[in-house]
Amino acid sequence: MSVEKGTELPPLELHLTRADLVRYAGASGDFNPIHWSDRIAQVAGLPGVIAHGMLTLGAAGRIVTDWVGDPSRVRSYGARFTRPVLVPDDDAGATVTVTAVVSDVSDGIAKVDVKAVFDGKGVLGRAVAEVVLPD
Amino acid sequence: MSVEKGTELPPLELHLTRADLVRYAGASGDFNPIHWSDRIAQVAGLPGVIAHGMLTLGAAGRIVTDWVGDPSRVRSYGARFTRPVLVPDDDAGATVTVTAVVSDVSDGIAKVDVKAVFDGKGVLGRAVAEVVLPD
Repeated sequence: MSVEKGTELPPLELHLTRADLVRYAGASGDFNPIHWSDRIAQVAGLPGVIAHGMLTLGAAGRIVTDWVGDPSRVRSYGARFTRPVLVPDDDAGATVTVTAVVSDVSDGIAKVDVKAVFDGKGVLGRAVAEVVLPD
Repeated sequence: MSVEKGTELPPLELHLTRADLVRYAGASGDFNPIHWSDRIAQVAGLPGVIAHGMLTLGAAGRIVTDWVGDPSRVRSYGARFTRPVLVPDDDAGATVTVTAVVSDVSDGIAKVDVKAVFDGKGVLGRAVAEVVLPD
């Protein structure tokens, strides 16, 4: 695996539906109704139901784990939640386009900058994963 | 809400079962069999099925969102994955004890250091959330 600063990872297109949000609620224990009720999301000042930030973060991280193959090589991962992902009430759901580029390689560790774009705008800021490269 | 350096958040006990892992697989799209098959986990050199790191990270983050009330106040969150959480094949699952303390407050932003302990050992390293405090 030849990896250097500037290496681009294969891009990823995520589709998040309301069914995914309901499953994520059950998996994570985060049953906040802004993730399944338009009515309550609107009371909270949102246009409608939004994805759990951690679901977007986790799903976007697949660009890294798909690339490196072994998820246990991901040493760290985190981001800022800069914008909500609005999930419409239809089968297509929200489309989030994920791209990633290696920003640094040293001591066998690659730093990967991840970008997640929804509706033309970034939803994660400073999303960085550290990956232990195979020998 | 009086928050200062050293403020401790109410602790949280997580119980992650294999059913949670299967739900998380469906929610996140990460169907890696090390999260549901002891056989394949052992081929991969693990003692058995382990939790998705992002599930542990996300579920541990509830200590912060429960405390602050409004999850949209969490501006950033991330961690290192330092140790796997082994999830036994029983109803109790794995118990992860989560504690958190405010390490810094400035300009209305609290930095919260999160600790997640499984089987006596930390499973997340440098887990930090930035939280916008209510006025």
